[in-house]
Amino acid sequence: MIQYDHHVKVYYKDVDQMGIVYYSRYFEYFEQARTELLAFLGLDVSSIEEKGIQLPVVSGHCDYRLGARLEQQLIIRTMVNELPKAKLRIQYEVFVKGNDAESLVSGYTVHAFINRKGKPIRAPKTVIEKLKDQFNLAD
Amino acid sequence: MIQYDHHVKVYYKDVDQMGIVYYSRYFEYFEQARTELLAFLGLDVSSIEEKGIQLPVVSGHCDYRLGARLEQQLIIRTMVNELPKAKLRIQYEVFVKGNDAESLVSGYTVHAFINRKGKPIRAPKTVIEKLKDQFNLAD
Amino acid sequence: MIQYDHHVKVYYKDVDQMGIVYYSRYFEYFEQARTELLAFLGLDVSSIEEKGIQLPVVSGHCDYRLGARLEQQLIIRTMVNELPKAKLRIQYEVFVKGNDAESLVSGYTVHAFINRKGKPIRAPKTVIEKLKDQFNLAD
Amino acid sequence: MIQYDHHVKVYYKDVDQMGIVYYSRYFEYFEQARTELLAFLGLDVSSIEEKGIQLPVVSGHCDYRLGARLEQQLIIRTMVNELPKAKLRIQYEVFVKGNDAESLVSGYTVHAFINRKGKPIRAPKTVIEKLKDQFNLAD
Repeated sequence: MIQYDHHVKVYYKDVDQMGIVYYSRYFEYFEQARTELLAFLGLDVSSIEEKGIQLPVVSGHCDYRLGARLEQQLIIRTMVNELPKAKLRIQYEVFVKGNDAESLVSGYTVHAFINRKGKPIRAPKTVIEKLKDQFNLAD
Repeated sequence: MIQYDHHVKVYYKDVDQMGIVYYSRYFEYFEQARTELLAFLGLDVSSIEEKGIQLPVVSGHCDYRLGARLEQQLIIRTMVNELPKAKLRIQYEVFVKGNDAESLVSGYTVHAFINRKGKPIRAPKTVIEKLKDQFNLAD
Repeated sequence: MIQYDHHVKVYYKDVDQMGIVYYSRYFEYFEQARTELLAFLGLDVSSIEEKGIQLPVVSGHCDYRLGARLEQQLIIRTMVNELPKAKLRIQYEVFVKGNDAESLVSGYTVHAFINRKGKPIRAPKTVIEKLKDQFNLAD
Repeated sequence: MIQYDHHVKVYYKDVDQMGIVYYSRYFEYFEQARTELLAFLGLDVSSIEEKGIQLPVVSGHCDYRLGARLEQQLIIRTMVNELPKAKLRIQYEVFVKGNDAESLVSGYTVHAFINRKGKPIRAPKTVIEKLKDQFNLAD
C-alpha cells in the first residue's frame, strides 16, 4: 500500500451557509492530494502528459460523515492499495490535523489511462514500476 | 418515479485544460438540479430550512463517460425512484440537449434529514406527501 | 449603449458562511453574462475563437454594496458603452429580480484582443460592426 | 509597510481551456493570502469574528498580465501600505516562485469593518495596534 498525507487549510471560499465545507470542494482537495501523491512517486502530471498519457477520472465517490470547518487544518490521506491494470483506484480519508482517529470524509477516484488518440490503454510501464518500487519499500 | 430536467450551459469557468468540464463541477450542477426538482415539488430549500430541517449530503457519486464541452447546453435529468425513509436518494443523468440517447455522466447523491439539533430524523411527512403526490401523478 | 440582462439564481455552491454570495463568484456570473451578451450580438466565444481571436481579461473589478442571498433570482445587467479600439470594456450591475432600483454589486471587465500568436491586435472588424449595429439600433 | 508571501500551487481545478488560471481564481488566492497575512499578525479570522467584527470585501480588483500555468508554484505577495481608518486596503502581487522580478497579476481588495449589527465601524484598536507593531518592526 502507498500512502501520502496532503495538507490543506479551509478558507472562506470552501465553506457554505451551513458553516461546513461545500460537498464538491472535497473533489478539489482530492485532486490536489493525488497530484502530490503522484509527484511524490515521480509521476507528476505534466511529465505524464508530455508522454501523451492522460489519466481522466472515470468515477468519483465521497461519503460525508462530519463537516470540516473554517480555518481547520485538514489532512487528505491518499492511498493506492493495488497495482493498476486498466484503471488506477485512489482512496482518500480526510482528517482534522492532530486527530486521525476520526475520518470526516472518505472517498475514492478511479482513473483510466488514455493515449494521444483518446483510446484507453493499459497502465504504462513507468507508472507500474514507480508504484511497485513504493509497494516494495512499504513491505 | 419523479423526473425533472434542469438546463445548464457550459461556460469557461467550468472547463479545464483538457477542454472538458472539470469533474467536481458536475456536483454543482447536481445541486442546482435537485434544488429545482425540490422547488418544483413545492419543497424549496429555504422553506424546508425554515422548518428546521436540513438535507445534508451523506454520499455523492459520479461516473464520467464523456466530457461536456464549452458552450454546450446540458440537461441534468434528475430522478427520485423511491420514497425516502431515513434517507433520500437522487439520481442524475447528464445529456447534451437534443441527444438524450447518450448520457455523458451519471451520478447520485444521498441525503439525510436532520433537525435543528443536528440529529438525524425520518423523512418529514410534508416531504413524503409531496413526493407521493408526484409518484401518483406519474402512475 | 448596448445592454443585456442575464439571469442567474443563487445556489448553495455560491454562498459562504456569512450567508451571502462569495465575492469571487460574481466574476463567474460576469463571465456567463458577457458570454450571453456576445452570443446575443452574434459573437459567440466558440466562433470568435475559431477565427483565431481570443478576448482575455486584462482587468476585472467589483464593488460590493449588498450581499446576494440563497435562492435569490439575480439579474446581471451587462453593458457596453463605447466601441472598442484596442480593448473592450464591459460593465455589470447586479440586481435582485424585481428591484432594479438598487444595485447590489457593480463591476467591469476589460478585454484585449489577441491573435493566434498571442499578440495583441486591434478590435476585429466583425466585432466592431456587430457592436455598431446594436449602437445604431439603440439610437 | 507589511508584506507577507503566501505560496500556492496551480492545480487542474484552477486552469481553464486556454491553459491558464481562470480569472476569478486569483480572488480565492487573495483570500487565502490575506487570511495568512492576518493570522501572521495575530488577527486570525475566527478570533476577529468572535469579537463580533467582520471584514467584508467592499472592492476587489485584478490586473492580468501573464497567465499562471498548471503545476506552477506561485507566490501571492500580500501588502498593507497604510494604517486603516474606516477601511483596510490590501495589495497583492502574483509571482512564479523564483522569479519575483516579473509580476503575473496585481490586485487589491478593500475591506470595511462591521459590527454584530452589520453597521460599519472604524478599524478596531486591536487591528490598528497589531498593524502598527509590524509597521514599526519594518522601519
